[in-house]
Amino acid sequence: MERAVMLAHEAAAAGEVPVGAVVFSADGTVIGQARNCVEAWHDPSAHAEMLAMREAVQKRGGRRLSDCTLVVTLEPCPMCAAALAHFRIGRVVFGAYDSKGGGVEHGPRLPYRVETLHKPEVVGGVREQECAEMLKIFFQTLRR
Amino acid sequence: MERAVMLAHEAAAAGEVPVGAVVFSADGTVIGQARNCVEAWHDPSAHAEMLAMREAVQKRGGRRLSDCTLVVTLEPCPMCAAALAHFRIGRVVFGAYDSKGGGVEHGPRLPYRVETLHKPEVVGGVREQECAEMLKIFFQTLRR
Repeated sequence: MERAVMLAHEAAAAGEVPVGAVVFSADGTVIGQARNCVEAWHDPSAHAEMLAMREAVQKRGGRRLSDCTLVVTLEPCPMCAAALAHFRIGRVVFGAYDSKGGGVEHGPRLPYRVETLHKPEVVGGVREQECAEMLKIFFQTLRR
Repeated sequence: MERAVMLAHEAAAAGEVPVGAVVFSADGTVIGQARNCVEAWHDPSAHAEMLAMREAVQKRGGRRLSDCTLVVTLEPCPMCAAALAHFRIGRVVFGAYDSKGGGVEHGPRLPYRVETLHKPEVVGGVREQECAEMLKIFFQTLRR
């Protein structure tokens, strides 16, 4: 999570919503990492976890990340929560919970739905306060 | 839908699941179009509608497609159904229904959920048989 938090800080410094994500392979090697790039890329789908998973499959070849862990500072939104299944990610570890925009433990709770074909292991709330604080400060600064 | 079907045929010819998508601006101009590129790009998130919407925002600038229509040959999956909200697409018109993998009229039915902040107009089943037939033939050929 340390590296994901660092990427989130980079996002904030660039004027992006501070979210960072890292994909680790089974042996702990980083095979994908990204920060939120929605503003920079003019792409509403350029969420940190999408970009990190995309990089990871590019690096590894194939299309599946079943033995990999995605670490992300914020609970994935429904788009990214659904992408977890497309990328067959093995485990997702996230920091802050997102009661309004989350799609893993909130809203459609996609990894738990009957029709979801691939269900990753989910660990939420890791360094939760720190991850939530980054977002809070970012949005407070925006509103000033 | 004509152009989306053509793109889907292109996808099939390239060994991709035959799905095509086109984004039209309010005046009927095509501002984004794509076919499924999952295999070619080694990217499980490279669905036709994601790529078409991404192209459309790049072309127009800004981040919203509220006055635009996305036409796609297959009911969007939950990932793409959630992306509709991120891109603020005004209307989605799709061909075949997808009872197993769909996320618009099946599964989480994302555009109809209380917490979904942007709800596009939805029109399903346009040239349904033709769109479904393409997929059926593609998968039958694969299994041979």
